[in-house]
Amino acid sequence: MQYATLGGGKRFRPFLVIETAALFGVPQAKAVAAAAAVECVHCYSLVHDDLPAMDDDDMRRGRATVHKAFDEATAILAGDALLTLAFEILGRPQTHPDPAVRSELVLGLARASGWHGMAGGQMLDLMAERTPIDLAGVARMQALKTGALIEFSVIAGAILGRAGDAERQALARYARALGLAFQIADDLLDAEGDATEVGKATSKDAASGKATFVSLLGIEASRDKLKELEAEAIDALDAWGEQADVLRAAALFVSHRRS
Amino acid sequence: MQYATLGGGKRFRPFLVIETAALFGVPQAKAVAAAAAVECVHCYSLVHDDLPAMDDDDMRRGRATVHKAFDEATAILAGDALLTLAFEILGRPQTHPDPAVRSELVLGLARASGWHGMAGGQMLDLMAERTPIDLAGVARMQALKTGALIEFSVIAGAILGRAGDAERQALARYARALGLAFQIADDLLDAEGDATEVGKATSKDAASGKATFVSLLGIEASRDKLKELEAEAIDALDAWGEQADVLRAAALFVSHRRS
Repeated sequence: MQYATLGGGKRFRPFLVIETAALFGVPQAKAVAAAAAVECVHCYSLVHDDLPAMDDDDMRRGRATVHKAFDEATAILAGDALLTLAFEILGRPQTHPDPAVRSELVLGLARASGWHGMAGGQMLDLMAERTPIDLAGVARMQALKTGALIEFSVIAGAILGRAGDAERQALARYARALGLAFQIADDLLDAEGDATEVGKATSKDAASGKATFVSLLGIEASRDKLKELEAEAIDALDAWGEQADVLRAAALFVSHRRS
Repeated sequence: MQYATLGGGKRFRPFLVIETAALFGVPQAKAVAAAAAVECVHCYSLVHDDLPAMDDDDMRRGRATVHKAFDEATAILAGDALLTLAFEILGRPQTHPDPAVRSELVLGLARASGWHGMAGGQMLDLMAERTPIDLAGVARMQALKTGALIEFSVIAGAILGRAGDAERQALARYARALGLAFQIADDLLDAEGDATEVGKATSKDAASGKATFVSLLGIEASRDKLKELEAEAIDALDAWGEQADVLRAAALFVSHRRS
């Protein structure tokens, strides 16, 4: 569990929890437990996705995946226990003194992670290897597989900050644009990696012929879409003025990252 | 997920939630959601335990295990999604109107199921295949692997019923005796199956030489221990008089069952 969570990564989702909570004056120390819970779920999903029966990846973040460093049974159990730990953290009174806030975080994280969230998206992704999907199918799969947990990360900050409905709606708009941009940027990195370093960094998706935003839209239209999403994410934060500059920078980071 | 949960089984844990809640006047309709959450966790654990990398079982409850009926990736994801669904159910306002109750159920279920509960016990069990353990080791492993969730099932009824401390302590005593009896009865069924039907129903534990209560204590001492635990479980319910007759019958069922 330590190997899977403490070995690097961008910690993008906990960053979103903490920075969104900060919009409402919640200090980092009071948002960090919920942020850690989200990271536990993200890391568990990587451990299980890397398993031989799933994506069968040997390397992650520059070192052996959990089932390679340990064994498959350990990887399955470490993932199970990380997912469970996320809910243990959210259930603890230390995470937030108000049980209504804890309970709302639990419900939101479970919905974002389960059969109609991340796990469902992963299943759609596996099924797409057998039955080709169109652009709407890719959008739906990605909204569940990566979008739901990114959206929850932002909403968790709003829950901790006791945001009103209008604020939540604006943040949800930011999160959805951000999540989609995150995925398109990923697909572009894959596709451009293929074009410039043929035979070296061939992406798994391209190799398997699996549909992505880039394979369906083309590189140019994908770049345009990314710019549009970046603008929408930044626009959604208008109400907060310069207080939201860190979250705006996150949207720029997502669409401009090179790795 | 449906195949894993709706295909039979004793539903022993949800029974415990509902019957313990009933001691405090909670009607079945108000306990059934929490009971279903516990069963989701139990069923997820069976799906993952049956995987080739774990116990590698092809049959469960008289039909193909999930990874045999579908495939390994589906079994991993169905298990993940069932575990997540358990917490989604506990987070829903419909499960209990008081968020403090929901939050306490979440924390209790997560502790009983995670690294210092069921998942930790399964890891100890896997490690016992390589490094032999003594009686204290078997007791610790079983307390985590099967005991913790049985104890939580009983305590969940107490949480729903807003039981006081003394009542919770009595119920925890009942649950611990019941959980241990459940395991020893299981080991006895395995051992006696071997003795009477040699070569037909050889148990996996006996075949692998893995330590169990019966292999360490012997059949006679195990039967004595089972009787003692049955008496302790029944004794712990004294405060409830005939109201607790169904839970007493459960203790008798556990120690006398033949399958």
